[in-house]
Amino acid sequence: MGGVSEPGGRGWGVGVPVEAHRALAAAASAALDAYTTATTEHDRATLAAVVADGADGTPTMRIDVLVEDAILTALSRHPVNILTEETGWVDNGSALTLVMDPVDGSANAAAGVPLSAFSAAVAEDGVFTEALTVWLDTGRSWWARAGVPSPLRTTGRRALAGAAVSLLRPHPANAAASAAWWEVVRRAARVRILSTSCLEGALVAQGATDAFADAATDTHRLVDIAASVVLAEAAGGAVRDVFGRAVELDTDLTRRWSGVVGASPELADELASVLRTAYEAGRDG
Amino acid sequence: MGGVSEPGGRGWGVGVPVEAHRALAAAASAALDAYTTATTEHDRATLAAVVADGADGTPTMRIDVLVEDAILTALSRHPVNILTEETGWVDNGSALTLVMDPVDGSANAAAGVPLSAFSAAVAEDGVFTEALTVWLDTGRSWWARAGVPSPLRTTGRRALAGAAVSLLRPHPANAAASAAWWEVVRRAARVRILSTSCLEGALVAQGATDAFADAATDTHRLVDIAASVVLAEAAGGAVRDVFGRAVELDTDLTRRWSGVVGASPELADELASVLRTAYEAGRDG
Repeated sequence: MGGVSEPGGRGWGVGVPVEAHRALAAAASAALDAYTTATTEHDRATLAAVVADGADGTPTMRIDVLVEDAILTALSRHPVNILTEETGWVDNGSALTLVMDPVDGSANAAAGVPLSAFSAAVAEDGVFTEALTVWLDTGRSWWARAGVPSPLRTTGRRALAGAAVSLLRPHPANAAASAAWWEVVRRAARVRILSTSCLEGALVAQGATDAFADAATDTHRLVDIAASVVLAEAAGGAVRDVFGRAVELDTDLTRRWSGVVGASPELADELASVLRTAYEAGRDG
Repeated sequence: MGGVSEPGGRGWGVGVPVEAHRALAAAASAALDAYTTATTEHDRATLAAVVADGADGTPTMRIDVLVEDAILTALSRHPVNILTEETGWVDNGSALTLVMDPVDGSANAAAGVPLSAFSAAVAEDGVFTEALTVWLDTGRSWWARAGVPSPLRTTGRRALAGAAVSLLRPHPANAAASAAWWEVVRRAARVRILSTSCLEGALVAQGATDAFADAATDTHRLVDIAASVVLAEAAGGAVRDVFGRAVELDTDLTRRWSGVVGASPELADELASVLRTAYEAGRDG
């Protein structure tokens, strides 16, 4: 792993890793600087204000815009393609695309809950090859490149029984998804909701928790799970979708997934299967 | 607030505040050092190993023991009374008692989820007068003393509808408590589970979230909520118990509460009432 490894071998680095692709590194550094400035200069209400509808159809907060604009400025010297929350798809005719969430956990970031991340994956000719997630509140980072040995190592857990699982918050208006959510609570040993998908994916890759899932609400956009695909696979884990859809590069930002990140392929498969079965029973019941 | 205030007025300090009572400061400094050493020198399995039954009747992990032992050594020069998780009640004949959780969020700390805290309240002749919570992974701190103006300020929110609420994880085997848990999900705008009560209480005092609750599972020991009483009240909030019990100094560590920390007395009352009503309906239904 790049950057300076922290003592204790906990799997994260500190700061932007030196091995990262220069466009990825430039984007991450710009995000860290812009996040610090934004949270220093603005109060919560200002950061949380909805200032636009993003390219993905969801509302965009001012903090998202501030960080994304800084990233785009930094990337003007790196003509890769960009797929990101607010701006959408920017085709610069490159073989490389950065799939990026400038501020994962925007609601946390705006409110002052110190759990938000810059997160991006590099796709080369459509295949995810490298990823970097940086915890904006501390500068800790998780980086991996496909084919390069990584110090990241999941827990290796194979079964949901006894697992520690992070979930997106439940959506009580969606009865079938709520049934799926609760089924995981019944089977897992421990459940967390940190409200920051990319950081929760990184914690699976690091071996701090066993799995993370969107419990069949189809909330995940590609930018919420792309980095976890690379990080989890480099660490021995796997990413699935509850409904079996491939997590793949697509410039259509309205596509959604119910992403599942597992410490092993077996756990990712079981968790996706449990969620889908409970969702379908809830929908038909 | 003590320590160095971070830019942006987010309400936390950095490190152990200079205004803190010297016993409290000594305990916090020892906890920070011991936590860093423990997580540097030991792997997850070692830190998570259950090495004793604590004085409160719950299992104690090695990380709890390592940090608590370091604190007790540091406090040998400060003869206050101590009430803490593993050792229990130590009567040194002082008018002051430190009610202390050496590592709040032990499961997070042992696993490598970077959300755990040292947290303690000072009781003078039985009344909580000062509190300090320190996020062990970053050194950020929240401190308050009763009667001393504090920069901590809650959101001030008065109603559960639209609120952001942190909850202890649900206990699916307890049907009545699960009904209470889900009722909060239905009414709140956002739910988080960070698995670290003292840090979640501090985030309410800081105004990053509106409330935190144990949804009628009677999991909270005094050490889990004592600091939040002082921090929340200094910031305009309030602490309640779902079943109306006073949150008060008691050397009996087997006592339990279902603590509720609210951004305002009105919100704390409403949340406690909603939880109790849903719990009783679930129990009798």
